Amino acid sequence: MKHQFDLRLSALGSAYKNQRLTPRHLIAALREQAVALNPEFNLFIHLLTEAEQEPYLAALDSRSPDELPLYGVPFAIKDNIDLAGIPTTAACPAFAYTPTQSATIVEQLIALGAVPMGKTNLDQFATGLNGTRSPYGECRNSVHPDYPSGGSSAGSSLAVALGLASFALGTDTAGSGRVPAALNNLVGLKASKGLISTAGVVPACRTLDCVTFFTASAAEASQLLALTAALDPRDEYSRANPMWNSANAFGTPRPFRFGVPRQLEFLGCSESPALFAATIERLQALGGEAVEIDFSPFLEAARLLYEGPWVAERYSVAGELIEAQPEAVLPVIHAVLAKAPGTTAVDAFRSQYRLQALKAICQPIMDSVDCVLTPAYPRPVTLAELHAEPVARNSDLGYYTNFMNMLDYAAVAVPAGFMNNGLPWGVTLFGRVFTDQYLLSIANALQHQHRLPLCGDRPADCSLPVNPAGNDLVRVVVCGAHLQGFPLNWQLLNRGARLLEVTRSSPDYQLYALAGGPPYRPGMVRVAEGGAAIEVEVWELPSSELGSFLCGIPAPLGLGKVQLADGRWEVGFICEPQGIEGAQNITELGGWRAYMQTKA
Amino acid sequence: MKHQFDLRLSALGSAYKNQRLTPRHLIAALREQAVALNPEFNLFIHLLTEAEQEPYLAALDSRSPDELPLYGVPFAIKDNIDLAGIPTTAACPAFAYTPTQSATIVEQLIALGAVPMGKTNLDQFATGLNGTRSPYGECRNSVHPDYPSGGSSAGSSLAVALGLASFALGTDTAGSGRVPAALNNLVGLKASKGLISTAGVVPACRTLDCVTFFTASAAEASQLLALTAALDPRDEYSRANPMWNSANAFGTPRPFRFGVPRQLEFLGCSESPALFAATIERLQALGGEAVEIDFSPFLEAARLLYEGPWVAERYSVAGELIEAQPEAVLPVIHAVLAKAPGTTAVDAFRSQYRLQALKAICQPIMDSVDCVLTPAYPRPVTLAELHAEPVARNSDLGYYTNFMNMLDYAAVAVPAGFMNNGLPWGVTLFGRVFTDQYLLSIANALQHQHRLPLCGDRPADCSLPVNPAGNDLVRVVVCGAHLQGFPLNWQLLNRGARLLEVTRSSPDYQLYALAGGPPYRPGMVRVAEGGAAIEVEVWELPSSELGSFLCGIPAPLGLGKVQLADGRWEVGFICEPQGIEGAQNITELGGWRAYMQTKA
Repeated sequence: MKHQFDLRLSALGSAYKNQRLTPRHLIAALREQAVALNPEFNLFIHLLTEAEQEPYLAALDSRSPDELPLYGVPFAIKDNIDLAGIPTTAACPAFAYTPTQSATIVEQLIALGAVPMGKTNLDQFATGLNGTRSPYGECRNSVHPDYPSGGSSAGSSLAVALGLASFALGTDTAGSGRVPAALNNLVGLKASKGLISTAGVVPACRTLDCVTFFTASAAEASQLLALTAALDPRDEYSRANPMWNSANAFGTPRPFRFGVPRQLEFLGCSESPALFAATIERLQALGGEAVEIDFSPFLEAARLLYEGPWVAERYSVAGELIEAQPEAVLPVIHAVLAKAPGTTAVDAFRSQYRLQALKAICQPIMDSVDCVLTPAYPRPVTLAELHAEPVARNSDLGYYTNFMNMLDYAAVAVPAGFMNNGLPWGVTLFGRVFTDQYLLSIANALQHQHRLPLCGDRPADCSLPVNPAGNDLVRVVVCGAHLQGFPLNWQLLNRGARLLEVTRSSPDYQLYALAGGPPYRPGMVRVAEGGAAIEVEVWELPSSELGSFLCGIPAPLGLGKVQLADGRWEVGFICEPQGIEGAQNITELGGWRAYMQTKA
Repeated sequence: MKHQFDLRLSALGSAYKNQRLTPRHLIAALREQAVALNPEFNLFIHLLTEAEQEPYLAALDSRSPDELPLYGVPFAIKDNIDLAGIPTTAACPAFAYTPTQSATIVEQLIALGAVPMGKTNLDQFATGLNGTRSPYGECRNSVHPDYPSGGSSAGSSLAVALGLASFALGTDTAGSGRVPAALNNLVGLKASKGLISTAGVVPACRTLDCVTFFTASAAEASQLLALTAALDPRDEYSRANPMWNSANAFGTPRPFRFGVPRQLEFLGCSESPALFAATIERLQALGGEAVEIDFSPFLEAARLLYEGPWVAERYSVAGELIEAQPEAVLPVIHAVLAKAPGTTAVDAFRSQYRLQALKAICQPIMDSVDCVLTPAYPRPVTLAELHAEPVARNSDLGYYTNFMNMLDYAAVAVPAGFMNNGLPWGVTLFGRVFTDQYLLSIANALQHQHRLPLCGDRPADCSLPVNPAGNDLVRVVVCGAHLQGFPLNWQLLNRGARLLEVTRSSPDYQLYALAGGPPYRPGMVRVAEGGAAIEVEVWELPSSELGSFLCGIPAPLGLGKVQLADGRWEVGFICEPQGIEGAQNITELGGWRAYMQTKA
């Protein structure tokens, strides 16, 4: 179904700037469509009225689309996230309250110019992954009527998929922001915990909850994350975003390694294995090297979530209501929370110890790759299957998602094809905490390489900035005492560095043996003429360790940018002019290793 | 009491190297002393026999003191830490078991050449801060018989204080490694959680437990930490030590800011206030600036430890025994753990939320200073007082220690004077996680400035290395587009940098206006002659953010070392030779700000 408007962030921005569109016109038309679609999809619990939207539109009257990056951009809000003056229900009418202040993320988006469309339907208390667990009606899939939207952020995914909003806010504790994305041909970004404030959000598990973005493209998710990731004094679980994860520049990623579970589970689906295999090939075509990883500790962490004491976190939100008015809460939610009251603090700590043990097991696996690729779910389930076995079929959908928040990873669901019946199918890329923008840059490359139809046949963005996003690692070019086997190599090894390649610089450098030592050290100097290609090594180490490495480097040396034989510029050793005065020019030897052999 | 042997690490090393002493001779003599002292002090639960020590001594026969940094160094082990083949009791005979493998930290120390003397007495299950809660007898203070040793690492502190070991291992969950240090004129290092493995240690609260070192000097604690801090696959709570925290070089710290609680509590002690005030003055004399801080959130976190669900962690260790054989556990331990079984998982999570909120409140306070100074305890308590009110008087001792592990800080107790009755009195320095070596460098400076008698009248080490330890912050000298108000200054501000000083370089630099821009940028170049003092700014930012800052710097610029007007060398902008070819020499203007004004 082609959408009536081109709701891409970039398209809306230029439509407003060129005065081809006004926010009032767009919002009114979208509201009308929403009214028409809601009886079938049940996506809005509360669609804002014209009067309720007017203050947001009025605030834009005095502003220009040049000032506000989200000027007039319509967005939808999952109904466990506060919008001031509108009831927050968490899909439980008896629980509802009307907040006087919006959630921090909603305040941020409105301040950036975005306009809320309404509060969307969800699995009650965000407990579910399918979109049928709501007294406000079931959410069917945007594409295929026999399937659910996925949940718990059901209505938010539909708002974007049906062309009623440019993006939408979901939440994600165990997959609620990723499963509905995959089922509706959307990108679902569950950023690292603490990057997007959860202040003003009804908790599911406070230690695990994330606010998520549904978008048509990874580029838009990246833009939204860059605009909103910030420490929030209202949210004690808020965390500062390291600057390596702040870039929203995109491009073809450099060579990278992605993990693929040795234990793949498709629950008998006949089509998913081929769709997944095709995605692996696409990542390989983008320069990725597939690495098989043991997935069992991840799966054990997933089981802890619902089998362990974390249900007590959910109970601490809904328990009072359940005790006072048992009938106010859906039976399936009762069932999930049933064992929470009997769980002891001793149980809670013991499960936390087990989770910590699993984190320790998973960490070297995650350190061995740049990201991991999994299916978003083993197989889609139909509405009929969900009605027949609501808990078991719901669990099927969470097979690849439940562990992510427990283990503190960043994750993004990305569209990756369609089933023969037209149902969208997706994958998840996940990685170490604070590698969100890096994951999004790979997701973006995948989307551009794949050229799948975006939801509502939106055109793909073809303006690709050239810089790839960084992650938590950094490369350093060394040419002297830090080379493998040389006296200062330990300064790299002790920082967890690994050797990526032995190569040469571009043919623009001279090498000098500096005065002083031991340790004896060279200076590598870029020259306009008379240069040669110098033997160098490229090492990779945690970005957080580069600062102390730099502190240990004495004058006249330092770190700047060095050009390699293939034309790339990487961080590497440079030398101040004073250092080479009177130093011996050893360029003709081609490298420090050769020079030191002449001295031996 | 002067000790018979000079047990300093450095002194033992040179005595062995000069063959003035052999490990067998020393260890036999110390064992004899221990046998003589134990009836009075009850410090050893199990003093190793000659036969039990023989394998450790035999292993040294084929090694030289030059190879092993702790060759022949006697150490004592708190009896909740495993030594293979010797019972671990946790001061509860019914709980005892005989491990086949030593704790990781014990294995590490033995591999470094250290020789275990025995297993030391403790408050049962490490639950206590005083040293009287043991069926193996009370531990009196090493100096004054009316006072306790402090606990729970009671016997370990006495082993060092009485000259029976060079250092000793304690554990610390709420102050057990710091209170006995202060009461016995020792340094007590509770390093950041996860730096020293807790594998093979009987847990008190696994999420909080640390293994600690008791030493006579901060220099020795630093050396031991540098030798043993390492990721341990046996300990899932183990954490990698960032390299900025790996230095064990010492010296006079640079200017620093230390927090002092606005709410000081001495519980009526007439002498402690003056002792504390004198320590503040000593830190000021070392270049420290005292900053008053709000201490109430720290105190609230301390109360959570025993009033909240963390007692369930202790119960998960001792609970089974308490249920099976109530009489096997001391009544006072029963009392502490009484409410644990009734604590629910919901309680546990709610208290964890509150702790997280307190962490968020404390963090900006901790970010505003380099460390915090407190008394080690409000006032010492006598054995008679402890007998009269065992729980209340024990709590008094933990007033300044209970919150530290909960909030994930590094801490070191340092001797800071004596009461009129001769009882040692101490302070605690604490700081952000992974600033251990920095805290120790300040503690070391304080010890050298104060020149207090060390335990057993050990001579102070006078060989002070010149490099001060770093912490988690790094300074950067900027001279161009990163200056305050200039176009790239946001790259510093977005990394949480703060301006430390506006100053000049040493008079050895030329400044060039580089080609290209905007942003327009200068190159600062060190020269042998014709240099001038250039206007610069010194900024401070998290070391973990310096790597991404460096990645954003294009050639021909980079970061190296720049000398300031006062002679210091700091990390700062440097420029490659090629960059200044044909560039305009603007040295005579004295700085980039002046140059840009001429362009305006």
